[in-house]
Amino acid sequence: MAFVATISDSQPRRASIQSLVELVSPGMARVNDLILSKAGSNVDLIPEIAKHLISSGGKRLRPMLTLAFADMFDYQGDGHVTLAASVEFMHTATLLHDDVVDESDMRRGKLAARKLWGNQASVLVGDYLLGQAFKMMVDVGSLEALRILASASAIIAEGEVLQLGAAKNIATSEEDYLRVIEAKTAALFAAAAEVGPVIAGQNRELKQAARTYGMELGYAFQLVDDALDYGGSSADLGKDIGDDFREGKITLPVVLAIARGSDADRAFWSRCLEGEGIEEGDLEQAIELLRKYDALTETVERARNYGEKALRALDPLPKGPLNDALADTVAFCISRVS
Amino acid sequence: MAFVATISDSQPRRASIQSLVELVSPGMARVNDLILSKAGSNVDLIPEIAKHLISSGGKRLRPMLTLAFADMFDYQGDGHVTLAASVEFMHTATLLHDDVVDESDMRRGKLAARKLWGNQASVLVGDYLLGQAFKMMVDVGSLEALRILASASAIIAEGEVLQLGAAKNIATSEEDYLRVIEAKTAALFAAAAEVGPVIAGQNRELKQAARTYGMELGYAFQLVDDALDYGGSSADLGKDIGDDFREGKITLPVVLAIARGSDADRAFWSRCLEGEGIEEGDLEQAIELLRKYDALTETVERARNYGEKALRALDPLPKGPLNDALADTVAFCISRVS
Repeated sequence: MAFVATISDSQPRRASIQSLVELVSPGMARVNDLILSKAGSNVDLIPEIAKHLISSGGKRLRPMLTLAFADMFDYQGDGHVTLAASVEFMHTATLLHDDVVDESDMRRGKLAARKLWGNQASVLVGDYLLGQAFKMMVDVGSLEALRILASASAIIAEGEVLQLGAAKNIATSEEDYLRVIEAKTAALFAAAAEVGPVIAGQNRELKQAARTYGMELGYAFQLVDDALDYGGSSADLGKDIGDDFREGKITLPVVLAIARGSDADRAFWSRCLEGEGIEEGDLEQAIELLRKYDALTETVERARNYGEKALRALDPLPKGPLNDALADTVAFCISRVS
Repeated sequence: MAFVATISDSQPRRASIQSLVELVSPGMARVNDLILSKAGSNVDLIPEIAKHLISSGGKRLRPMLTLAFADMFDYQGDGHVTLAASVEFMHTATLLHDDVVDESDMRRGKLAARKLWGNQASVLVGDYLLGQAFKMMVDVGSLEALRILASASAIIAEGEVLQLGAAKNIATSEEDYLRVIEAKTAALFAAAAEVGPVIAGQNRELKQAARTYGMELGYAFQLVDDALDYGGSSADLGKDIGDDFREGKITLPVVLAIARGSDADRAFWSRCLEGEGIEEGDLEQAIELLRKYDALTETVERARNYGEKALRALDPLPKGPLNDALADTVAFCISRVS
């Protein structure tokens, strides 16, 4: 397995999320109950849409991070369960709004909520879930956790606006793009992890370590997703290949290919991503260019580097099965594309 | 002035918001500074859109309520200013999302943000302002105020989803409609007022009195708005007459006219509001039906009743210029249509 070999100073890792899933499963059962109960409303459309999204089988990686990083310190209260559910609501609200903004048709292999219930309901149900998320955070009563998650919420939206500007603009630099994914993906992974030691009353160094793990894992996760959008199979991704391409999104593989390409290549990317749509055969040509310039392997290589930083962040944290499971999770995220 | 005469057991009131504006003006100067600074972002589009909305001249009634109900108790900190700015951000975020959901072209006499920058940016900048609002609330550090405002946020979204169901459905009852406006308008007025005594550390009775004032004022305000949409002039409203009609919104005037109308009238409303759009002359006929069945005067009468309840809620609160100004504000809200 390529990934294990590159992390030369670490033990070989199982590229699996299974240990993490098992270790947090009692907590996740409570998170799932809370999610279903808080997605309820007298207004029928709300639970209908929320349950569609929630039951559509995401991995729930973010709330698992919150539970793992609280359990790691033997946290005994209920706050981690409530914060984990808030984190998932924040994520779900973002997905609903993203699909509207990106005009997506599919989400996790199912029709996107906006195709089933319309853009209007998707916007408003997203708002409702965000409001419920904040109510749950208030229930927990930790102002520090509230501050971390409220900041993440503003940063995610800022990142999405930034991405809107970067979309359909092939002059987007690697630096611009990394700012986008820090905001739209890594910030919530970081917050989800950090609130674990926060709720468990741990010191600054340990909170920072959890935050760094989440942040670096988030970068790795997103870059792998970006590579998969051009290289995975539909079945793996739960969505069609080439969604980013069709939506005019400039992701890292494209940024790298444009930087290395010829003027003719540049004209191709401009026509496809800055123009009014793509023609038959364009996706195949895009994938060919990405392969020609090693843009996909390079993207995965960057993801691996972030993954190594995530592994190093685990060093100061308590050793044991949860620490090992979090290390396996890094390997798992990257193995999706290896 | 008709309104003064109907409130027989109260002193005659100036139907003016001027005293309130003057009394809270030092605080509002700070609120405005904070709003402009917190609407800032490195992502240029965010301050651009936020400033467009913020500078477009709403009355800022909600943040004025927060300041007035804190000043009334001689509150000395900065928390009321920060909470007032959060309340305005919550409101602004709602306007951005509403315009997308309602497909509105105008907002306060200017082109709606979604017409200038697109639906995508309006959704995302709304999300950003909501995130900033929660960050500001966390800065204040009152979990009680956070709980009140987070609940309002979820309730507003719930009300909007409910309205989505009520739109284009002429079977909407008066009760259904009152539920919608409690959630979409009155709940934020109530929260804006209640956090004043909360931050000033007042007792339950006084917090409840402020909340009731805000809630009843919110109902009155919305019903007057609904009547104005069929009866005011464009200049007064800052938007075209008949917006609600064109958007298929079933507001109280329409609910009352339908309940009192003939089968032929019912067929007319169904064609206009449940069908695929309206024809020339339909708005004029709608206004004629509303007048025929006294639906506009009846709506204003209901608004007056809510206004009287708002005035009574001021009784247990400290007497003085602020209490008087809040009473004038009730009269002002209703006088917009008298």
